[in-house]
Amino acid sequence: MSEAFSAWMKSIQVLMEEALGEFLPAPTEKPARLHEAMRYAVLDGGKRVRPLLVFAAGELFDAPKSELACAGAAVEMIHAYSLVHDDMPCMDDDELRRGKPTVHVKFDEATALLVGDALQSQAFLVLTEGEGDAVRKLAKVRLLAEASGSFGMCGGQAIDLDSVGVFLSRGELEQMHRLKTGALLRASVLLGAWSGKQLSSDETAALDAYARATGLAFQVVDDILDATADSAVLGKTAGKDAADNKPTYVSILGLSESQALAEKLRQDAHHALKDFGSAAQRLRELADLIVDRKN
Amino acid sequence: MSEAFSAWMKSIQVLMEEALGEFLPAPTEKPARLHEAMRYAVLDGGKRVRPLLVFAAGELFDAPKSELACAGAAVEMIHAYSLVHDDMPCMDDDELRRGKPTVHVKFDEATALLVGDALQSQAFLVLTEGEGDAVRKLAKVRLLAEASGSFGMCGGQAIDLDSVGVFLSRGELEQMHRLKTGALLRASVLLGAWSGKQLSSDETAALDAYARATGLAFQVVDDILDATADSAVLGKTAGKDAADNKPTYVSILGLSESQALAEKLRQDAHHALKDFGSAAQRLRELADLIVDRKN
Repeated sequence: MSEAFSAWMKSIQVLMEEALGEFLPAPTEKPARLHEAMRYAVLDGGKRVRPLLVFAAGELFDAPKSELACAGAAVEMIHAYSLVHDDMPCMDDDELRRGKPTVHVKFDEATALLVGDALQSQAFLVLTEGEGDAVRKLAKVRLLAEASGSFGMCGGQAIDLDSVGVFLSRGELEQMHRLKTGALLRASVLLGAWSGKQLSSDETAALDAYARATGLAFQVVDDILDATADSAVLGKTAGKDAADNKPTYVSILGLSESQALAEKLRQDAHHALKDFGSAAQRLRELADLIVDRKN
Repeated sequence: MSEAFSAWMKSIQVLMEEALGEFLPAPTEKPARLHEAMRYAVLDGGKRVRPLLVFAAGELFDAPKSELACAGAAVEMIHAYSLVHDDMPCMDDDELRRGKPTVHVKFDEATALLVGDALQSQAFLVLTEGEGDAVRKLAKVRLLAEASGSFGMCGGQAIDLDSVGVFLSRGELEQMHRLKTGALLRASVLLGAWSGKQLSSDETAALDAYARATGLAFQVVDDILDATADSAVLGKTAGKDAADNKPTYVSILGLSESQALAEKLRQDAHHALKDFGSAAQRLRELADLIVDRKN
């Protein structure tokens, strides 16, 4: 990772922490316990991969920072709500997330349920905030709603639930992940790009190919880490997938072929950006970050 | 209830059933079980009070039916998702809703969680559908997001959770219900009105006063029915509030004073509409329906 990229990443993470802190209800406002739990779920955690994608794609199309902060906050709230609900006992039943007790452990299950629900509403609210064209904002609401719903993230989780103990082909596994994590990662790239100038169809196709490869790489690496890292480094319970009898890239392809696939997807992501030149450097570095990450 | 009103109500309910059927993903589309459960949660149930409010307010301002159908479907999906999550074991733990097994009983808890999550996304998606001005649509997205979130419905439910076994003053109880059910009922009225011509500030204030009175009346009557009706008529478990040690209008004011309050709120609702003349007849009849209902 270059020093310039590392500094850029840090600056976006700091900016996003501030933006999220402002876009979330203050902990002093009633109902205070709910607001405290919403902030606990979102703030001070994670690498902010989705907002980083928003900013990297946005900067490629000269998007204003304030609009990128709205888009980044919205997509991060959706991501955070999905983690809170995912961790609940009726789903993955996880007690540890980003090295901290999960929301239902720290607070209680009913609060975790409401935190997720309220964060989703808040995400759509944030997308309507700030200056900017109503047509563009509405397109973003539509994109985020599609990426979150039953043909996106929630649909992927439903397939995931139905796959426990089931043999999935590689194609089925890929389809599940395209919905479960890919849809929101793709939305991040497009939300960023749409905050700038109007895209040509070639540019849209290139970004889509980039987002597709990067999104899938993210999941392949997730599966590799779940099989190889320990919980302390991962910040969540490692080895869960095998324990839960869930199909993963590692269980289907084996470890070394999974690693080769992650490498190939990194190259696909780079290749998709070939016509953008040096302006797409941040997106390239993010693809590298996603493949090389250790947690 | 006049015959004309009864026929109007029936026509809207039929129209909404069809619209909801179209706006929800088909049960044949993957993931099929999730889509089947989403449809189970929304279709063939309830009086559609919120869509009726959307249409009654919309017709007062000459709004096109197709736009009202989008708004009605969106608000009904939010309402339905809140019932699915509310019924879950970690919240109210209810097994019966509208005379049918609740979603987590009919399917399972994880599916119920995802159904609610996906219905919320779908509601915002539906608000972006159809013809119409982007500025107006965006205002509706904002209104619905505020009414659903931590300063609206989810916030009211959080206060409700914290109120079990606690003495609430009448003012505190009213504040809880203004958020828990009032915010979405108010949003229904405004979503309908905003689908038509631009409102004057006097008109907005009058509709707000109507929605406030009607929304509170809805809850007072809910508390009366929970204390007096039986489960078969109610289509859900009666007597839950007292059993759960929850503060209600009946527990705070007593039965006869609660009934007098419902009557006063009906008159407040009528009074708020005084300058609209006969064009607001449907809204008046809806206030009557809400106060006079038996389930």
